[in-house]
Amino acid sequence: MTIDRKIKMIVEQALSEDIGIGDVTTEALIAADATSRAIILAKQDLVLAGLDVCRAVFQHLNPEIEFTPFAIDGIHVRTGTEIAHLSGITRDLLTGERVALNLLQQMSGIATMTARYVDRIKGLKVALLDTRKTHPGMRQLEKYAVRMGGGRNHRFGLYDGVLIKDNHITAAGSVTKAVELARQKANHLLNIEIETRTLDEVREALAAKADISMLDNMHLDMMREAVKLVNHKAVVEASGNVTLETIRAIA
Amino acid sequence: MTIDRKIKMIVEQALSEDIGIGDVTTEALIAADATSRAIILAKQDLVLAGLDVCRAVFQHLNPEIEFTPFAIDGIHVRTGTEIAHLSGITRDLLTGERVALNLLQQMSGIATMTARYVDRIKGLKVALLDTRKTHPGMRQLEKYAVRMGGGRNHRFGLYDGVLIKDNHITAAGSVTKAVELARQKANHLLNIEIETRTLDEVREALAAKADISMLDNMHLDMMREAVKLVNHKAVVEASGNVTLETIRAIA
Amino acid sequence: MTIDRKIKMIVEQALSEDIGIGDVTTEALIAADATSRAIILAKQDLVLAGLDVCRAVFQHLNPEIEFTPFAIDGIHVRTGTEIAHLSGITRDLLTGERVALNLLQQMSGIATMTARYVDRIKGLKVALLDTRKTHPGMRQLEKYAVRMGGGRNHRFGLYDGVLIKDNHITAAGSVTKAVELARQKANHLLNIEIETRTLDEVREALAAKADISMLDNMHLDMMREAVKLVNHKAVVEASGNVTLETIRAIA
Amino acid sequence: MTIDRKIKMIVEQALSEDIGIGDVTTEALIAADATSRAIILAKQDLVLAGLDVCRAVFQHLNPEIEFTPFAIDGIHVRTGTEIAHLSGITRDLLTGERVALNLLQQMSGIATMTARYVDRIKGLKVALLDTRKTHPGMRQLEKYAVRMGGGRNHRFGLYDGVLIKDNHITAAGSVTKAVELARQKANHLLNIEIETRTLDEVREALAAKADISMLDNMHLDMMREAVKLVNHKAVVEASGNVTLETIRAIA
Amino acid sequence: MTIDRKIKMIVEQALSEDIGIGDVTTEALIAADATSRAIILAKQDLVLAGLDVCRAVFQHLNPEIEFTPFAIDGIHVRTGTEIAHLSGITRDLLTGERVALNLLQQMSGIATMTARYVDRIKGLKVALLDTRKTHPGMRQLEKYAVRMGGGRNHRFGLYDGVLIKDNHITAAGSVTKAVELARQKANHLLNIEIETRTLDEVREALAAKADISMLDNMHLDMMREAVKLVNHKAVVEASGNVTLETIRAIA
Amino acid sequence: MTIDRKIKMIVEQALSEDIGIGDVTTEALIAADATSRAIILAKQDLVLAGLDVCRAVFQHLNPEIEFTPFAIDGIHVRTGTEIAHLSGITRDLLTGERVALNLLQQMSGIATMTARYVDRIKGLKVALLDTRKTHPGMRQLEKYAVRMGGGRNHRFGLYDGVLIKDNHITAAGSVTKAVELARQKANHLLNIEIETRTLDEVREALAAKADISMLDNMHLDMMREAVKLVNHKAVVEASGNVTLETIRAIA
Repeated sequence: MTIDRKIKMIVEQALSEDIGIGDVTTEALIAADATSRAIILAKQDLVLAGLDVCRAVFQHLNPEIEFTPFAIDGIHVRTGTEIAHLSGITRDLLTGERVALNLLQQMSGIATMTARYVDRIKGLKVALLDTRKTHPGMRQLEKYAVRMGGGRNHRFGLYDGVLIKDNHITAAGSVTKAVELARQKANHLLNIEIETRTLDEVREALAAKADISMLDNMHLDMMREAVKLVNHKAVVEASGNVTLETIRAIA
Repeated sequence: MTIDRKIKMIVEQALSEDIGIGDVTTEALIAADATSRAIILAKQDLVLAGLDVCRAVFQHLNPEIEFTPFAIDGIHVRTGTEIAHLSGITRDLLTGERVALNLLQQMSGIATMTARYVDRIKGLKVALLDTRKTHPGMRQLEKYAVRMGGGRNHRFGLYDGVLIKDNHITAAGSVTKAVELARQKANHLLNIEIETRTLDEVREALAAKADISMLDNMHLDMMREAVKLVNHKAVVEASGNVTLETIRAIA
Repeated sequence: MTIDRKIKMIVEQALSEDIGIGDVTTEALIAADATSRAIILAKQDLVLAGLDVCRAVFQHLNPEIEFTPFAIDGIHVRTGTEIAHLSGITRDLLTGERVALNLLQQMSGIATMTARYVDRIKGLKVALLDTRKTHPGMRQLEKYAVRMGGGRNHRFGLYDGVLIKDNHITAAGSVTKAVELARQKANHLLNIEIETRTLDEVREALAAKADISMLDNMHLDMMREAVKLVNHKAVVEASGNVTLETIRAIA
Repeated sequence: MTIDRKIKMIVEQALSEDIGIGDVTTEALIAADATSRAIILAKQDLVLAGLDVCRAVFQHLNPEIEFTPFAIDGIHVRTGTEIAHLSGITRDLLTGERVALNLLQQMSGIATMTARYVDRIKGLKVALLDTRKTHPGMRQLEKYAVRMGGGRNHRFGLYDGVLIKDNHITAAGSVTKAVELARQKANHLLNIEIETRTLDEVREALAAKADISMLDNMHLDMMREAVKLVNHKAVVEASGNVTLETIRAIA
Repeated sequence: MTIDRKIKMIVEQALSEDIGIGDVTTEALIAADATSRAIILAKQDLVLAGLDVCRAVFQHLNPEIEFTPFAIDGIHVRTGTEIAHLSGITRDLLTGERVALNLLQQMSGIATMTARYVDRIKGLKVALLDTRKTHPGMRQLEKYAVRMGGGRNHRFGLYDGVLIKDNHITAAGSVTKAVELARQKANHLLNIEIETRTLDEVREALAAKADISMLDNMHLDMMREAVKLVNHKAVVEASGNVTLETIRAIA
Repeated sequence: MTIDRKIKMIVEQALSEDIGIGDVTTEALIAADATSRAIILAKQDLVLAGLDVCRAVFQHLNPEIEFTPFAIDGIHVRTGTEIAHLSGITRDLLTGERVALNLLQQMSGIATMTARYVDRIKGLKVALLDTRKTHPGMRQLEKYAVRMGGGRNHRFGLYDGVLIKDNHITAAGSVTKAVELARQKANHLLNIEIETRTLDEVREALAAKADISMLDNMHLDMMREAVKLVNHKAVVEASGNVTLETIRAIA
C-alpha cells in the first residue's frame, strides 16, 4: 500500500510540475475526443523497472486509458522490445508522455546499472547493497529499482538501522563505548553496524559484539585480513571505491 | 520567492524521508548539547550549484547552525577547496549531512556537466538549452543548476511555451495547419516552436511563420542546409545526438 | 486533467468551509435515507458557465447523486430554463445547494458580462482579453468563464508571458533597453509585450521589435494614431477605460 | 490566530497561483538588489478593508519589506488618500502588486457596499446581516469585510446555526414539527431560526418557540403584520428583495 | 460527508504512521497473493462504536477486502460475539490489524463508558453531555462514540457555542455584563451559556437572561437550590465531580 | 527536529479543530489588547510529560506569550506544584487553555502510569516496553511519554523491527521457516523477534537463532522454564496479562 500511495504522490507531483495550468500545445492542436494508440519501446538493452509507475502516470491523467504491459519489472529487455501498448484519448497520451518516460528511464537506469554490478559477483556468497544517495522523495522508488536489478537494500533512512560512523565513534570516545551506548539506548530491535577503517577497529568492533562491520575504504589486502578476523562472527560490508572493475575482487 | 518556497518544500521532503522518526544512531551516541565544526570540501573539480539548498537543509534542522560559504553558485571550484564551514549542535550537523550532500552533489553534477558542454561552444552565437527530463519535483532546481553551468532554460513545462511535435503535426494534418491552429488557439503571449525533421518541413514551418524551428535528429549536413533556409527569419534549435564530441560541429 | 483537479480542490475547499463539522439543520430534520429530486432553474437570462463544477459539488458529497444537464457551458439561457435535474439523497442535495449555486452564479456572471462586451465588438477583427484581477485560487475557473462568454485569455500569471509595465521601463532605462533585456534573459518561447502610453513609446517599442504593444489608457484619437504606426508589424492591445459604452469605438 | 492562519493560506494560494515558477518580466528587467518605494492610493471614495491582508502579501514575499499604513480597516477614505507606503526590494514590490491590490479591492468593495446599506438604516434598531454567498475559501475575509462596513455576520456555515428552510419544513411535515425536531436533535447551544413565508407560518413558529423568524420575500405590509405578531417574543429577520431603495422601508 | 472525509484522513494518518516504508515482517513472510479470512471478536461486553472506521482501515489498504459486519454501532455486544468477518489478501489483513483494532477499541471504550453513565440516569429528564477533552484530531470520532453510548454532545469547539467561564466573567466585570456583551457581539444564532459557582451567580445569570446555566462544582444541596431558582426559565447543566456513584443523585 | 515538526503538526491540528472560525466567547468578552498571567498547577501527584508541547500550543497562538517552566519532563511532581507560569495576551491564553491542558494531561497520564509499573520492577534487570496501541498521529508523543515515565520503546511501527506473530508462523509453515525467511528477506539491520506460546516454540526459536523471543500470554511457571531454556542466548520479552499486581513476579 504505502508504495502505491508513494507512487501516487510522486506521479501527482511530477504531472502537476510539468502540466501547470495546461498543455497549451496539445489543447490547441488535438481534438478533445480524438483517440490514439501508442507503444513504449526499449531503445537499448535494459533491466526494466517502473512499469507500474508508468501506468500510474497515464491513468492519473485519465483512468480510462488502457495500458497493456508485455513485460514485468526486473526482467532484461532487448533493444526494440515492445514494453507496453497504450490506447485512449490522444490528449492524455501526449500530455503524460514526458513524465511517464522520465520515471521509467530513471528507474530502469538504476536497475540496469545494478544488474551489471550484480552480474560481476554472480556465484559468490555476497549481496550488493545500496546507499542513501537518492533524489528527494524518490528513495522508495529508487531502492525498489535496486531490488529489480538484483541488489538488496541497506537501511531506508536514519530510523531503521543503527550505523555508527567515524564522527559517532569520536564523539563516543571509542569503538567499544560507541557500540555499548548504541546497545543501551537504541531500540533493541535494530542491529548495530559500525564503520571500521583499520584492523584494530575491526578487532574492537568484534570484541564489542557489533552485529555488522562495514569496512570503509580499505585496500583489498586489508579487507581480506579483516574478513579473516571476523570469521563469520559478524556480518561484513565493504564500502568505497566499488566500481565495475573492482567489485569482483572485493566480493 | 517561489524558488525559496520550492527549496523549503524539497528540503522538508528530503529530510522527512531520511529521518522519519529519528536518527537513532546519533540520538544514542551524541549528547544533545554537544557542538561541532564541519567543513564542506570539494572532492573533485566542479561547478558549484546548490549552496543555498545545502544551507537550507541544516538551517531547517536548526536555524542556529552557522553556515559560512566560501564560494557562490556558478563558479568553478578545484579539488580540495573548502566550500563552506558549519558550526552548531553536533546532532543536527550529523543528521543533515547526507541530505545536504545529496542535493549539493546532484545539482553541482548538473552544473559541471553543463559547463563542459558550454565550454565546447564558447565563442559561437548559440546557447545550450535544457529539456524536461528531470526528477519529479526537482525541475526548478535542476534547471537552476543548468543556468549555473552556463546553459539556458527551455520551457519549464507544458504550459509556458508551444512546442509542436510530430504527433501534433500528424493530428493537425500538416505543419502549416498545426502552426495556424496554435496561433489561433494558444495564448498569444507564447511563441510557436515546431519540431522539423526534413528540409521540407523546415520550409513549411518558415512559410507558416513559426517563431522557432527545432531540427530534430538531423545530420550535420541537413542542419547546415536548414540553417541556410531559415536565414535568421526564425530561431533555430538542434535536438538529438548532442554529445561532448558532436556539440561544436552542431553549433 | 489539471482543470479537473483544480475543480476538485475548489469544491473540496468550498464544501469544507461551508459544512465544517456538519449541516446541523439538515441532519436534525431530514431522514438519512430520504431521497428527493431538484431542478436548477435560470432566474434571469444568462450565459452558462460552471455546470461541471456544479455537478462536481454534489457528486463530491455523494457520487451516487444523479445529475442530468439540459444545457452546456457557453450557451445563452433564458429566464425560466431548466438547466439541470438532480436526484438522490435529500440530505446531500440540501447540504450542497449553496456551494453549488455560488459557483454556478459566480462563473455564469462572468460569462454573461463577457458575452455582453463581446457582443459589442461582433464583426470586428479584435478579441476581448481578460486580466489577472481574479479571486484567490479561482483564476483558472474565472478565465474559463471568460472563454465561455466568448472572450480570450491574456496570460494566466507572471510566468507565462512577458509584460513590461511602466515601472519595468523606468528600471531598465528605456523602452528599447527593456525590450532588449527581456529578449536576452527571458525564456525565448515567450513573446514580449510592452505597455506604451505615448506615441513615442509606441514607435520605440516598434523599433525594438516588441511582439505586442499594449496601449495603456490612451484616448481614442491617440489609439487610432498608434494603430496606424504599428501597421500590423506587431500585435496591439488596448487597456483601461473599457466599458460597454466605449468598447466598440476602441475596437 | 485562525484569521491570521487563514490570511496566510489565502496569500500563499494567491501568490503561488500568480507567480508559478517566477515573474519572468521582473526577473529579466529588474536587478536583484534594486530597492524602491511605493504608495497605495485610493482611486475612489471607499471604506477600507484588507490592509493587513495587503501587508501580508508583500511580507510573505519578503519579510523585510517595510509597510507603513496611514489608515485602518473600517474607516472611510477619500479619493486620493495615501493608504500605505511600502519600501523594499523592487522585485518583490512589483511581483506582489497585483495580488495585494486584488485582495484589497475585493474586500474594500464589500465593505464600501455594506456601508452604503448600513447608512440607509442608521438610527433604527436593526442590523444588516450577510449571507453565505461568498467565494470559495474567502468566507472569513469577506465576512470580515462586511463587519468593517458596519454590517453583522449571520452564520459562517452550516455548522454554527440552525436555519430551517422551506425544504426542511416540507420534509419535517410542519413548522411545529420542524422546530421540535431541531430542538430535540441539534446541539442545544444553537438557537433555532426558521424561514417563514406567510403570517400563518409566523404564528406557528411563534407557538413552537422558534428563537428567530426570518421573513422570506414578504411584502412590506405583510412584514409589518408579522413584526406585530411576533411582538418581541422572538428575533425577526427580513430576507429577499433588499436593495438600496427598499432597505429603509423594510428596516 | 465531512465525517467520511474525517475518517479517511484519520485512517490515512494512522496507517502511514504505523506502516511507514512497509510492514517488513509481513512482506518477508507472507506471499503477495495469499488470501485469508479473519474474524473480529468481542473480548468483553461492550457498546460498539467505530465499525465503519474499522472497515475503512482495511479498505484503504485494499478496496477489495470484503468486510461483513454482524453488528452496528450503538448496540450492546456480549463477550465472544463475532462483530465482523473479513476476507482478502493476507498481507493487507495483517498489516491493517493493529490500526483497525486501536480505533475500534478506543471508540468502543468511550461508547461503553458513556453507556454505563447513561444507564444510571435512565428514566430521568436529563441528558449526559460530553466535553472538549479529546485527543488531537479525534474529536469528531470521540464525540460520535459518545452519541453511540447514548450521550449527547456539548459544543464541538470554541466556535459553535458561547460558554462564559469564570475568567471571562472577571474580565467582563460581572455576570450581567458578560451576558450582555455576549448577546451584543456574538453571532445571534448561538445560545449563551454561563458557568456559575454560587447561588448569587445563578440568580444574576437568570436576571441577565442567559440561555443556559452550568452549575460548576456545586454540592448537591446547592444544585438543588439552583435548580429551584432557575425553575425552567433556562436550561441547567451540572459539571464537575460526576462519577458513576454520584451521577444519579446529581441528575 | 522531526519531533519538533511532529509537535507543530499536532498542535496545529488540535488548535484548528478546537478553534475553527474563532473562539466566539473570548472574542466577544475579552478586549484584544488585555493581558494576563496564568499558572499551570498540578492537581494530583504525577510524572510530568508534555511541557514543550504545552508551550508550543500557546506560542503557536502567539509567539510573544511568555512561558516560564518550573519543572522538566520526566520528574515527579506533587499536588499543588506550580509547573509553569504564562503571561501574555489574555485572549490567546484563554483560547489555548483546553488544547494545552488536554495534551499535557494525556501525556503526563501515560508517564505517570508507566512510572508506577517501572517502580514495581525497580532493581531487576528488566525493562518495561510499550506497544503500538496508541492514538492516531500521537504515537511519537505517547512513546515519548513512556520514556519520561522510565519505560523503553518497542518498535515505532511495522517498519523498524521484525516481529513474527502466530499468523506469520502459520503462513510460513513453522517457527524455523519463519525465522529463515525473515533473515533472508528483511533488511539485515533489523533484529528478528518472534512470538512464542509454548516451550517447544521457544526451543525452535532458539535453534533458528531468532534474536528475541516474546513469551506471549504464558503462565508464570512456563515463563520461568522458557527463560531457563533461552539462558541468555537471546533476549526475552513477556507480553499479556501484565498488571500492577503481576508485573513484579513476571519480571
